[in-house]
Amino acid sequence: MTAHLLTIGDEILIGQIVDTNSAWMSRELTLRGIRVNGKTSVGDTREAIVEGVTHAAKNADVVIMTGGLGPTKDDITKTTLAEMFSARMVFHQETYDRIVAYFQKVGRPVSPAMVGQATLPDKATLMINKVGQAPGMWFEHEGKVFISLPGVPFEMEYLMTNEVIPRLLRRFPIHPIAHRTLLTAGEGESNIARRIEAFEDALPPYIKLAYLPALGQVRLRLTGTWQDEVAPDSELRLNSELDTKIAELQAVIPDLVFGREEETLPQVVGKILLAQGKQFGTAESCTGGYVAHLITTVPGSSAYFPGTVVTYSYEMKTKLLGVKTEILTRFGAVSEETVREMAQGALDTLGVDVTLAISGIAGPDGGTPDKPVGTVWMAVSDRTRTVTQKHIFGRDRLKNIQLTGTYALNLVRKFLLGEV
Amino acid sequence: MTAHLLTIGDEILIGQIVDTNSAWMSRELTLRGIRVNGKTSVGDTREAIVEGVTHAAKNADVVIMTGGLGPTKDDITKTTLAEMFSARMVFHQETYDRIVAYFQKVGRPVSPAMVGQATLPDKATLMINKVGQAPGMWFEHEGKVFISLPGVPFEMEYLMTNEVIPRLLRRFPIHPIAHRTLLTAGEGESNIARRIEAFEDALPPYIKLAYLPALGQVRLRLTGTWQDEVAPDSELRLNSELDTKIAELQAVIPDLVFGREEETLPQVVGKILLAQGKQFGTAESCTGGYVAHLITTVPGSSAYFPGTVVTYSYEMKTKLLGVKTEILTRFGAVSEETVREMAQGALDTLGVDVTLAISGIAGPDGGTPDKPVGTVWMAVSDRTRTVTQKHIFGRDRLKNIQLTGTYALNLVRKFLLGEV
Repeated sequence: MTAHLLTIGDEILIGQIVDTNSAWMSRELTLRGIRVNGKTSVGDTREAIVEGVTHAAKNADVVIMTGGLGPTKDDITKTTLAEMFSARMVFHQETYDRIVAYFQKVGRPVSPAMVGQATLPDKATLMINKVGQAPGMWFEHEGKVFISLPGVPFEMEYLMTNEVIPRLLRRFPIHPIAHRTLLTAGEGESNIARRIEAFEDALPPYIKLAYLPALGQVRLRLTGTWQDEVAPDSELRLNSELDTKIAELQAVIPDLVFGREEETLPQVVGKILLAQGKQFGTAESCTGGYVAHLITTVPGSSAYFPGTVVTYSYEMKTKLLGVKTEILTRFGAVSEETVREMAQGALDTLGVDVTLAISGIAGPDGGTPDKPVGTVWMAVSDRTRTVTQKHIFGRDRLKNIQLTGTYALNLVRKFLLGEV
Repeated sequence: MTAHLLTIGDEILIGQIVDTNSAWMSRELTLRGIRVNGKTSVGDTREAIVEGVTHAAKNADVVIMTGGLGPTKDDITKTTLAEMFSARMVFHQETYDRIVAYFQKVGRPVSPAMVGQATLPDKATLMINKVGQAPGMWFEHEGKVFISLPGVPFEMEYLMTNEVIPRLLRRFPIHPIAHRTLLTAGEGESNIARRIEAFEDALPPYIKLAYLPALGQVRLRLTGTWQDEVAPDSELRLNSELDTKIAELQAVIPDLVFGREEETLPQVVGKILLAQGKQFGTAESCTGGYVAHLITTVPGSSAYFPGTVVTYSYEMKTKLLGVKTEILTRFGAVSEETVREMAQGALDTLGVDVTLAISGIAGPDGGTPDKPVGTVWMAVSDRTRTVTQKHIFGRDRLKNIQLTGTYALNLVRKFLLGEV
């Protein structure tokens, strides 16, 4: 089975937004063994949509469209599809009620535009959108499947996960496919590739290794596909073989691996804190609360995280963390001495067992010859010891903040496990 | 003149990377009045490339391809294009010398693969790549232009800026095109649509309005194109008309507009703080430092932002912000009374002129019948007054945090401007 993704909307063609939707969809479909063999973006006109849908259907069994379903006038996907599939536009009371209820729940007024949103092609099977207004639509036409989803990422993700993918897997036969993912932090793609070369060369042809790099992290994914033979136990055997291989891979680079599958560093750190019964807090300068934000993205983090102080100014570092003025004036805010004092001071200020302190030059300005933009000092401390680390990242402010977040949480993880 | 972008490479189809190249290219082309009327991504096979190029050429005057020019075996763009345009592959000494020189400069060994990289279709006009290895190629075939560029972002950007765009502007007459964007927060797409309906209906046919929604925000973009008449002063007149229209639009919904073009809410709040000479800080509970992170994404924010306290626990709220225990036990942490005390306490703790306090139930658990998941209280305070606001968002933890960030910064903006 093959799918073609079609993104509808001028905002993508003029480059006002980056199309993250279709990357997300490709990943999710590929993970389930549905091959994406093309992607197209077209504008908000009837002609462009007709041409895009027709072209997409020539190349794939399933066409998945996003965008162009909102309540405003530039959204004409719905009527164009109705026309293409000889459907009539009819008012759909249930959808209208659902949209009205959704708006009332979030305390926003009901508007006449909602009648338009609840007017839908009669040939569409509707997929209920519990996190937004426009429902997803599923059409069957001349042996092909056409799916239309809203362009808002979390609405699209909700519908893909809960409706589209389960329906596709029922509708089409899929060969066994399985994945295992190792999560690594602190090393680049090419260095990892060098260390695991022998492992990679020894993989059987039906198991492929992919490198999925992100800022400061690389995910290593093994994908097994059993194309030729679909015996009753193929899937079981494939899964057991992947379990063996992923354990082998982890044994080659144990120092880099922080987790598996869909875990995140904040989740992993949170689990260790819970297991060790420790309270944790941060004292942040250049990251400006970003690490606290990462930690608190995890549900239940209040069990081990009472709080943070973001001390952007010298005064706050002294007032809230007790960093001595002479340390700041002598070594500067971005120094080993300062982060050490910040981490130790935060133990008392926050009343916790373990602290992380960060101070750096996020940029794009503010560097000096001996402390260039991107220089970051971090420290992790408990009541018995303090570990420090220095990094020099690049010139991009947001990237520096995000990289620091990853390296800092990884340092906390290693500190808690006694690996540093 | 119209362009179609064609991205070549399996890594995009399996969702391994997000296609930021084509967003960048679209923006740069659009800014210069070159209309991008479609984008396609295809895999690394000869058939997919032939089909993609043929389809793209049907819809546009210029096809710009990226990817598939590197030294590895799966890069077959070059030979496929040679075949399509009946060109011969010939060794190009000058390109070879340049690649070798480039490698020597960056201290990497010369490899046999470079002969392959310097073997190019004889019908291509080469565009010299000063920041990488593979040159760009420009083909003319049956009245259309076909351009092939490397997929590495900075190499693509170098060639687009220095070679492709200047050549295209010489080769084709360009119609004037221009954009204006208004940024709004705090209201949904459909309610905005209702309020600006009369404005939208009165727009001339050559000015289009688009709604670009994000979490808690909607951007309204006017695009003007002067298709029929290219008088010497068309561009000037189009721009001046757009300036008038965007001011008219702003006058219809002044309460919703927080900025224009590429500004962000944290930038706008920062500018107001700088102009008013005020210091600002946050006291965050459920957002866990996210608002502080947003503020500090802006370079130079240290001029008005000394710090934040994230008080996730009751104890921290009392210890760091002086929230009275009886307030917390009587009204709960998520209450108007508590955020009021947090905001007022933070004025002293952080030694600032204006504070924002936030407390809520981010979810997915922890709700009660009278305080469901998604309930958020926020307060903004200076030494003379305190304004509070309550919101009920949804069940998604990260979305609640992000929505709170947008609404809270918008409340701060209105507080500073005396609008609340």
